[in-house]
Amino acid sequence: MDPARPNDSATEKETGRLEAFSDGVFSIAMTLLVLELKVPTLSGPVTGAWLCGQLAKQWPSYFAFTTSFFTVLIMWINHHGIFKLVRKIDALLLFTNGLLLLMVTVVPFPTALVASYLRTPAASTACAVYAGTFVIISVAYGLLLLAARRGGRLLIHGAAGEVSRRVKDCFCIGVPLYLLAALVAPWSRWLSLGICTALWVFWSVGSLERGPAFRR
Amino acid sequence: MDPARPNDSATEKETGRLEAFSDGVFSIAMTLLVLELKVPTLSGPVTGAWLCGQLAKQWPSYFAFTTSFFTVLIMWINHHGIFKLVRKIDALLLFTNGLLLLMVTVVPFPTALVASYLRTPAASTACAVYAGTFVIISVAYGLLLLAARRGGRLLIHGAAGEVSRRVKDCFCIGVPLYLLAALVAPWSRWLSLGICTALWVFWSVGSLERGPAFRR
Amino acid sequence: MDPARPNDSATEKETGRLEAFSDGVFSIAMTLLVLELKVPTLSGPVTGAWLCGQLAKQWPSYFAFTTSFFTVLIMWINHHGIFKLVRKIDALLLFTNGLLLLMVTVVPFPTALVASYLRTPAASTACAVYAGTFVIISVAYGLLLLAARRGGRLLIHGAAGEVSRRVKDCFCIGVPLYLLAALVAPWSRWLSLGICTALWVFWSVGSLERGPAFRR
Amino acid sequence: MDPARPNDSATEKETGRLEAFSDGVFSIAMTLLVLELKVPTLSGPVTGAWLCGQLAKQWPSYFAFTTSFFTVLIMWINHHGIFKLVRKIDALLLFTNGLLLLMVTVVPFPTALVASYLRTPAASTACAVYAGTFVIISVAYGLLLLAARRGGRLLIHGAAGEVSRRVKDCFCIGVPLYLLAALVAPWSRWLSLGICTALWVFWSVGSLERGPAFRR
Repeated sequence: MDPARPNDSATEKETGRLEAFSDGVFSIAMTLLVLELKVPTLSGPVTGAWLCGQLAKQWPSYFAFTTSFFTVLIMWINHHGIFKLVRKIDALLLFTNGLLLLMVTVVPFPTALVASYLRTPAASTACAVYAGTFVIISVAYGLLLLAARRGGRLLIHGAAGEVSRRVKDCFCIGVPLYLLAALVAPWSRWLSLGICTALWVFWSVGSLERGPAFRR
Repeated sequence: MDPARPNDSATEKETGRLEAFSDGVFSIAMTLLVLELKVPTLSGPVTGAWLCGQLAKQWPSYFAFTTSFFTVLIMWINHHGIFKLVRKIDALLLFTNGLLLLMVTVVPFPTALVASYLRTPAASTACAVYAGTFVIISVAYGLLLLAARRGGRLLIHGAAGEVSRRVKDCFCIGVPLYLLAALVAPWSRWLSLGICTALWVFWSVGSLERGPAFRR
Repeated sequence: MDPARPNDSATEKETGRLEAFSDGVFSIAMTLLVLELKVPTLSGPVTGAWLCGQLAKQWPSYFAFTTSFFTVLIMWINHHGIFKLVRKIDALLLFTNGLLLLMVTVVPFPTALVASYLRTPAASTACAVYAGTFVIISVAYGLLLLAARRGGRLLIHGAAGEVSRRVKDCFCIGVPLYLLAALVAPWSRWLSLGICTALWVFWSVGSLERGPAFRR
Repeated sequence: MDPARPNDSATEKETGRLEAFSDGVFSIAMTLLVLELKVPTLSGPVTGAWLCGQLAKQWPSYFAFTTSFFTVLIMWINHHGIFKLVRKIDALLLFTNGLLLLMVTVVPFPTALVASYLRTPAASTACAVYAGTFVIISVAYGLLLLAARRGGRLLIHGAAGEVSRRVKDCFCIGVPLYLLAALVAPWSRWLSLGICTALWVFWSVGSLERGPAFRR
């Protein structure tokens, strides 16, 4: 009876498939992180205490695994939050989303790098690469948001303000601070990782404060 | 006609995407377990009997694989059962669910540890780590349930009793018994693993008895 | 208006989440098969012809990969066909489905075994394990079908006949022929693999002939 | 009230599950590509500059990773575009889709081959295998489209023209140009990879121009 109806439901299905596909990439990237946790190699006189020691020595792996897991989780929550504001999809949005997914799948690589090199003199390089990955991810988020806002036809009614606020978060908070984390890595690996972790907590608190958005 | 309707359906979609995302993590974690089954290395005079022997020697891997697979499966069934009681999602529920998923993706690591060290003197450490993982998982389930119950706004009508019963199962059965399994590991690896397996059977029987819940 | 409606749609959602979860396991198991295709190790004087030769020598891997991929694909199609006949889910169906998924995730392991040992004297053992896996998978399918048929409450109207026919296919064709393939492996690896491949073609043709079922 | 309705919705669910399953395979294949990015092995005197050098030397890996990621992404977008034109599924469509998914899961293998051998004399073979994979993928797309068009019963109203145009793109542009890329590999690895990349850009621009199709 309403000729606009079929069109609408087709659009929703469109967003749905893109979200489901992105969810797949996010969940696999999070799960593949575990492959970086290596079982200590059997060697020499194996005892319970020795295995404890070996496992304890791997703490950079556990730290990197946990940080990366929650970072990707928060990225997913943000992705989720963005697509709740999106009504239609066009090709540019599809490709900026693709760029973001590319960077999401990359995350296990710098994570493994930090886990392997955190206790070596090369830690600065590993931390700089790790923080640098998040610089690119912040840019990708910004581009995705700009692609969604462009022209105003793709967003749901009244979402432009929220999208603009998120663009500012990306380019005025995320990009410069992750860049700072990358640049301080040669001086202090801990400051570099600390900034990354602090930003993770910051994004979390941000979504906790905007909590009602998740219940709407 | 009913102004409350669009809101409701948006909420349902919300829960739907979280469930789909969690399903992705559960199914990938279950499938990655197979990567711990290693093909015996080609070496020396290879015969059919030799390969049989090599495969037979890997029984701790098969045992760990099967136990972990069914444990994660039952965790998924429980997760499924919990989210049938949940109507809305807020940020805290999102993060406690994230903590649970973190632990689900970790499961392949202690599984591989048990598979590698079950026949060595370090078995006690491996079994303690394995049981310890399930202590944390039980706590994560409890926190998820508490986050869902908190305030009472997130649950479907009349679900509070069932949620409270499940919280008690977590903190009064799951946590202390898995803790016991971790603590007895230095005395007997078999008792430790036996408790883990018995709990797996217990949770299964629990869901079999509550079977009608799955049909509703 | 219709008090039975909400119940019905809740049931459908239930089946939907189980199907989505199973789809996840099937698609991941199929994709993990590619990890068995190994890039030849760089060594000695590397030339284009040498790499061609190395890649050509890996033909058992390609053969095993393709066979296993299509076998899992057909298993998915069958799974799909079965769940189109299922209206409700109970705990036993959930666990028999879990057993089937366990065996689906295992498939990459015997596949890698065949790929590694097909050209060695241990091929008979590898082929027997490969065929043996499919014996267990056939039994798991049969149990799943029996669990679905049991009591008659879980199936859609008029599906009992089709389910019984599929049970017979499992126990009277699948199980004995895969068992035969496992038993002849010591005499001829090729006959063993040939029976597995022939059964794959047979199940395919079966679904092609029942084609209209997929269009309904 | 409308006896045709239940049938229709059953059909839509059918397409939905096939799309969800395919999405799973696409997203996993894209995510597994990251496993080819290897952390440099700890060895000798490790310094920040040394790690920079090691990471820089891996550029063929990053190049192959990025190209393959976007190629699979565009394949997914095309798959998505095709199934928007499909109304019903039959067994032949199911199997041609299976052939396409087989090739999608294979992509990480030639990608790793190019990454490992691009700087060796065997690069020609690696590039020819890489381009050859896309020849087969183009053929698989063409077969999928032919299976969808066959008989005309499976498409939505008015989609035959669009499907025929896509068939022509596959067989008259994709297949011959990827074949050319495979054949020129012995003369120039760069020309071979350049053709593959140019085609990736071409398919992208094609979907950008047909942008409105994604919004409909």
